[in-house]
Amino acid sequence: MAKEIKENLNNLKEYLKKLEYLTSSIALIQWDSMVNMPSKAIRYRSEILGYLSEKKYKMSTSKKIKQYIDFFSDLKDLDNITKRTIKKISKEYYKNKKIPKEEYKQYVIAGTISGAAWENAKINKDFEIFEPHLKKMVEYNQKFAEYWGFKENRYDALLDIYEPGITTEKLDVVFNNLKDAIVDLLNKIKDSDNSPNIEFFIGNFPRKDQEKFAKEIMYSMGYDYEYAGRIDESIHPFTTNFGNKDVRITTHYYENDFRPALFSCIHEAGHAIYEQDIPDSLQGTLLAEGASMGIHESQSRFYENIIGRSKYFWKFFYKKALEKFPQFKDISLEDFYRGINFVETSLIRTEADELTYSLHIIIRYEIEKLLINGDISVHELPSIWSKKYKDYLGVEPKNDAEGILQDIHWSDGSFGYFPSYALGNLYGAQFFNKMKKDISDIYEQVSIGNFTVIHNWLKENIHKYGSIYKPTELIKKVTGEELSEKYFIKYLNAKFKEIYKIN
Amino acid sequence: MAKEIKENLNNLKEYLKKLEYLTSSIALIQWDSMVNMPSKAIRYRSEILGYLSEKKYKMSTSKKIKQYIDFFSDLKDLDNITKRTIKKISKEYYKNKKIPKEEYKQYVIAGTISGAAWENAKINKDFEIFEPHLKKMVEYNQKFAEYWGFKENRYDALLDIYEPGITTEKLDVVFNNLKDAIVDLLNKIKDSDNSPNIEFFIGNFPRKDQEKFAKEIMYSMGYDYEYAGRIDESIHPFTTNFGNKDVRITTHYYENDFRPALFSCIHEAGHAIYEQDIPDSLQGTLLAEGASMGIHESQSRFYENIIGRSKYFWKFFYKKALEKFPQFKDISLEDFYRGINFVETSLIRTEADELTYSLHIIIRYEIEKLLINGDISVHELPSIWSKKYKDYLGVEPKNDAEGILQDIHWSDGSFGYFPSYALGNLYGAQFFNKMKKDISDIYEQVSIGNFTVIHNWLKENIHKYGSIYKPTELIKKVTGEELSEKYFIKYLNAKFKEIYKIN
Repeated sequence: MAKEIKENLNNLKEYLKKLEYLTSSIALIQWDSMVNMPSKAIRYRSEILGYLSEKKYKMSTSKKIKQYIDFFSDLKDLDNITKRTIKKISKEYYKNKKIPKEEYKQYVIAGTISGAAWENAKINKDFEIFEPHLKKMVEYNQKFAEYWGFKENRYDALLDIYEPGITTEKLDVVFNNLKDAIVDLLNKIKDSDNSPNIEFFIGNFPRKDQEKFAKEIMYSMGYDYEYAGRIDESIHPFTTNFGNKDVRITTHYYENDFRPALFSCIHEAGHAIYEQDIPDSLQGTLLAEGASMGIHESQSRFYENIIGRSKYFWKFFYKKALEKFPQFKDISLEDFYRGINFVETSLIRTEADELTYSLHIIIRYEIEKLLINGDISVHELPSIWSKKYKDYLGVEPKNDAEGILQDIHWSDGSFGYFPSYALGNLYGAQFFNKMKKDISDIYEQVSIGNFTVIHNWLKENIHKYGSIYKPTELIKKVTGEELSEKYFIKYLNAKFKEIYKIN
Repeated sequence: MAKEIKENLNNLKEYLKKLEYLTSSIALIQWDSMVNMPSKAIRYRSEILGYLSEKKYKMSTSKKIKQYIDFFSDLKDLDNITKRTIKKISKEYYKNKKIPKEEYKQYVIAGTISGAAWENAKINKDFEIFEPHLKKMVEYNQKFAEYWGFKENRYDALLDIYEPGITTEKLDVVFNNLKDAIVDLLNKIKDSDNSPNIEFFIGNFPRKDQEKFAKEIMYSMGYDYEYAGRIDESIHPFTTNFGNKDVRITTHYYENDFRPALFSCIHEAGHAIYEQDIPDSLQGTLLAEGASMGIHESQSRFYENIIGRSKYFWKFFYKKALEKFPQFKDISLEDFYRGINFVETSLIRTEADELTYSLHIIIRYEIEKLLINGDISVHELPSIWSKKYKDYLGVEPKNDAEGILQDIHWSDGSFGYFPSYALGNLYGAQFFNKMKKDISDIYEQVSIGNFTVIHNWLKENIHKYGSIYKPTELIKKVTGEELSEKYFIKYLNAKFKEIYKIN
């Protein structure tokens, strides 16, 4: 018997390695599509990706996989990693198998058409073009949620894809408290007479200098972009990886403003360090990746905001910034720091500041939940959107492009994904709270540009586990507590009250 | 019956499309390995490529493919393209199937080890390190040639992989005549008092200017590097493609000499234009690629040498060169032209000039033929190499690195490949001879930097056929004659006698 287990385990590992090769191949070809591909190649390229994705789908739903699941599910004395691997492939297997094959195929085709309709609608700022397609995507996802099953709320079945263990029951409380706290703080900020100056951010920042500066920072953070990664340019910044020794980020430079590229680099480097830290030993287990979308975002947002927009960070790096960008020479460190934390309610999620960002997500969460549960119709969306933006942020879109049509996610049916972005903020602050207890001189370290202790803490407590633990388990394991919004709220209050001089 | 044929044809096409997707995926990942990959990724990357290559091998040798071969081989009334497709997959199938599976696996492993040994031997300039591995690779190839079969010469079985239809019987004659002609011309050049000046080529040529200049030329040639291709940098220049709408070249810049990057760009653009011109209709037939290695080289060498090193070409582009590189302002067009055609016998194939290049190939051809037929031993190679270099070129390597170890080809068992390089010269001159008859004002066109007529001629006569025709068939179809060395010899004599003022 022991021999049979060992043999099966080896075979499983071989099988999963192949699945990972396929995943890496797809990721690399997708990276190339975003960074290098000449425009005429798009059609053939999508055929290649379609072919490889189908292969991957087949491997994840094969009879072979079912045999492994059946064989190992009955065994008691498995090591923890194998148990988790089996859980993961089993979840993926049944998730796929519960959808009738033909229906899934129709869904993928509908998604492609819907994506094109969304693009067209956005260009024309006209939701009506997208409406029938979005309706279909919602209906498919409602059905899938029913196939997959859920305890109380149909939306939970979708949440579970991106953030296993997180439910609407939990999110309702957490997001409501967060929303109230942010709206409250926002009102105080609006009443404040101490708004930071940000005029000096607009000027001439040569691409080369921006790149050098960002690299200096990312190098300090511990992102190996030289021997185990690389930095390129694409329309939207992103991170991708093919194994843990080839983790690539992209950014986008604007020569009139150095902030977008800089903070996106810090953000993506946060993702990249996570992937580089995942140990070789997890290869061939399907666990060699971040614990969840939200945990991944917690790393990038922690570095971007909690570290990268902190006073301590700029105590060290402002001198370096002045060497590259002498136009700041008359701007004090304090004014610079306040400037990069300027708060402004706005319409576009991806451009939102640290404080208001979560509100953009909460609005999408509330709408998704209503949609998937059939409590509102797709037709009502633009008006509901406008109302929520007005209520929470005090702004209203002038057209659909800067409102309901701004994000791509719904066009291919990715409902349940948005909450991860805000969860990243919460996880990040909660991890940071624990980190501060463990590292007594953390601020001093950041003030001298030394991130080694932080990097090591993250590696030891989070990164090295890959996705062995569910996000709910991981946060408990690391902090001893369940997910809580209170650390992020406390952090926001302390930071922005100081900046805006609010009592 | 007709219905069955149609159905099978459609299925075959679907199958081959998938095979092409796999080929494109491998090519793209290999391109990334040469251009972008961080160094630490090399091991995992080779695992990915190994996995995809095995998949491709399995698809080319599957029961399914055998069924298609059996079904279509019996049919009489097939269109020409389908016939050729069946021939091609059949050839590939039997080529693979004739080698026992286990033996092939051992060969691939031996090839990897041999490759590493070659690298090590080259660094240490010591053939002995490589010798036992090379011996194995030779023995494998001898065996494979026996498996595959041949009429008269065992080496023909290997030639057939790269240059179908070409035999040693033909090559012996062609290469002998070519060798005699070049050696004869070379002796006259050595005796000439009119050696061109080349000192002015060494200087400071900013990378950016080199790139701009090369792009200007490639754009004129008709290579679409913007919407259907791209240009990157790698250690050795190469061309690769994933379909006909993503055809990429690489080059390597030396800031002290603008010639290597410039002429390699013209060379690779010649390859790239070929691939871009192959019609969409050949996708899914396995014929959407160049007719052979040699025909491909004929395109690149034609553009690089016959066009790119011609007086007519520089009549137009020398003015442009002067704008970018004012250091040439005191150099006359005539001196520049003579300079880029400077002949020098040398040891390294890849650095050889237009005239002596073929001798480097002929030496390898003669040695390969002897080796594969068992007429010489691997142990004797360095001394045979030295003797031939001395006899043909009048130079002798000081060590193995600049002699027998210089090229990578033998390390993974690619015997039979080298002749294609020299065949490219012969095909190119032979095509050019016909082209001149068809385009009466060809020199005038080149003199005004207009390559449209040339591009159209190549497209109509060569490119549009992909690999429908074997090289031997193609040369006959285009020129009405068999492969002949006489056009290239005539061309060389005319060109170099004029440059070196030989009567």
